[in-house]
Amino acid sequence: MDKKYVIGVDVGGQTSKLGVVDARGNVLAQSTIRTDTHDDVNLYVHDLAEAVTKLADQVGGMESIRGIGVGAPNGNYYRGTIEFAPNLKWKGVVPLAELVSTATGVPAALTNDANAAAVGEMTYGAARGMKNFIMITLGTGVGSGIVIDGNVVYGHDGFAGELGHTIQVRHNGRQCGCGRTGCLEAYTSAVGVARTAREILETTDRQTVLRDLQWDKITSRDVAEAATQGDRVALDIFEFTGKLLGEALADFVAFSAPEAIILFGGLTKAGDLIKRPVVEAMENNLLMMWKGKVKVLFSELKESDAAILGASALAW
Amino acid sequence: MDKKYVIGVDVGGQTSKLGVVDARGNVLAQSTIRTDTHDDVNLYVHDLAEAVTKLADQVGGMESIRGIGVGAPNGNYYRGTIEFAPNLKWKGVVPLAELVSTATGVPAALTNDANAAAVGEMTYGAARGMKNFIMITLGTGVGSGIVIDGNVVYGHDGFAGELGHTIQVRHNGRQCGCGRTGCLEAYTSAVGVARTAREILETTDRQTVLRDLQWDKITSRDVAEAATQGDRVALDIFEFTGKLLGEALADFVAFSAPEAIILFGGLTKAGDLIKRPVVEAMENNLLMMWKGKVKVLFSELKESDAAILGASALAW
Repeated sequence: MDKKYVIGVDVGGQTSKLGVVDARGNVLAQSTIRTDTHDDVNLYVHDLAEAVTKLADQVGGMESIRGIGVGAPNGNYYRGTIEFAPNLKWKGVVPLAELVSTATGVPAALTNDANAAAVGEMTYGAARGMKNFIMITLGTGVGSGIVIDGNVVYGHDGFAGELGHTIQVRHNGRQCGCGRTGCLEAYTSAVGVARTAREILETTDRQTVLRDLQWDKITSRDVAEAATQGDRVALDIFEFTGKLLGEALADFVAFSAPEAIILFGGLTKAGDLIKRPVVEAMENNLLMMWKGKVKVLFSELKESDAAILGASALAW
Repeated sequence: MDKKYVIGVDVGGQTSKLGVVDARGNVLAQSTIRTDTHDDVNLYVHDLAEAVTKLADQVGGMESIRGIGVGAPNGNYYRGTIEFAPNLKWKGVVPLAELVSTATGVPAALTNDANAAAVGEMTYGAARGMKNFIMITLGTGVGSGIVIDGNVVYGHDGFAGELGHTIQVRHNGRQCGCGRTGCLEAYTSAVGVARTAREILETTDRQTVLRDLQWDKITSRDVAEAATQGDRVALDIFEFTGKLLGEALADFVAFSAPEAIILFGGLTKAGDLIKRPVVEAMENNLLMMWKGKVKVLFSELKESDAAILGASALAW
């Protein structure tokens, strides 16, 4: 029988999502299993294999599954491993692709979340037909997947594409989760935006509806809502965030001269509030020859499905 | 007869160097022609073809030439063109590869100088056997050639790899020749080093042998000589330059996770004076997983031959 489906698995800190996907990017069936309840990765793989079999049964059984793609934090494509992931309970180097393949009898490939998102966008989304683009994921952290000549850039060791950890603020930069200071991620992630809001509340007397919220619970979504209502401070936060991101993008363009930069993740829900300042700052900082020539696009994958789609695309 | 040689042409603002090269990277014969005396590119190509024929005659005639590789400022590999090169008299877009090929009857390929240097290093030099590295040329300007999975990165439009124009000093950065401010090139080129020297002479009273030189004629070579003699100001200039370059390299590593970064050009003659602070700053700024893992090497091509070798390597 024709192996016409793939399975995508998105390994998150708390839960893992999985789904069966057809060649057009339709998620035909999906389910979740817990990640964090398994201290032993072998028990996790056991549950995952069971969930995979159940999903496959809904579309004709395992014989119809061509492969399994896994997106995971600190995933290494070359080795099929998760290596020293701070948000997972499995310590050290975990050969997850091999374990999954053995447990299911189907080939499995693995990469990190942002690279998986790039492959997903190229296979089913805004980057269809593109050979050169950069995917920037703006979620809890800032991730990136770089595609050059149609291939994801993995580099010498399989860990290339950590653009969230390029240093954008060289002096007195914010502390980043990676241990260094001034990283892009410390400013333009959802967490970074909330941090900017708290900094303004703390260090200024400016009037804003954000003051009505509980200080330590403010999210980037609150800031977006306030901005939509015309709150000046919230609007300034997006200007600041967009400017930093746009400046960084101009440098990324100097590296790989992409056709487009695709933004993905929670922060893109702010729409033009974030896109306009990003594009403006990028254009102001591009070398003459690239001005007006590099598209900035939002992901076209439905967010609830995007992680599964990205991971699944690895398996084709 | 066996086509066992290639010809490399390095197009400079004043003169063009050309040479016949064998598969091991020996330059068997070379010559030069003037670039700047030809307002009309067709006349230049006529002279070039004549010089190529003369060179070929020394190794068995044009039948022994497999191809011609051209390194040129603002060279576009995809189109074989030189586009809007500020240092050349030919304006607009010049289809040089096609003109050369037609005039000589031999296939010709063209790219910019720094990409040619990267190909040269991979074919004959320090990057033999490497699939992922970044070449940084530290000459009058700062150029770069990025190799990923064994291929030079040209990007969507053929102009990728302008790392000299990533912005490293975001506030009050130096004016760069590209029209923007704060570019790496404005600090870590040979010209940038001389500029740093002049700034220190102008804005401080520090004692240094550099004060004995004519202010506007100071070169990076003077600074290197002074540093070798233990001049404190000259040593500080290399510390400053190396720190800026090393910080930039750490960000480049986050992009493509190279096995090595190869430094080439005039400034590398300063040896450890520049290399030590570069490596130190890079290591201090790398993400944990790359610390101690990315080599910083000097080019292994003899400088007098390097441009010809780089260009010639394109032709294999």
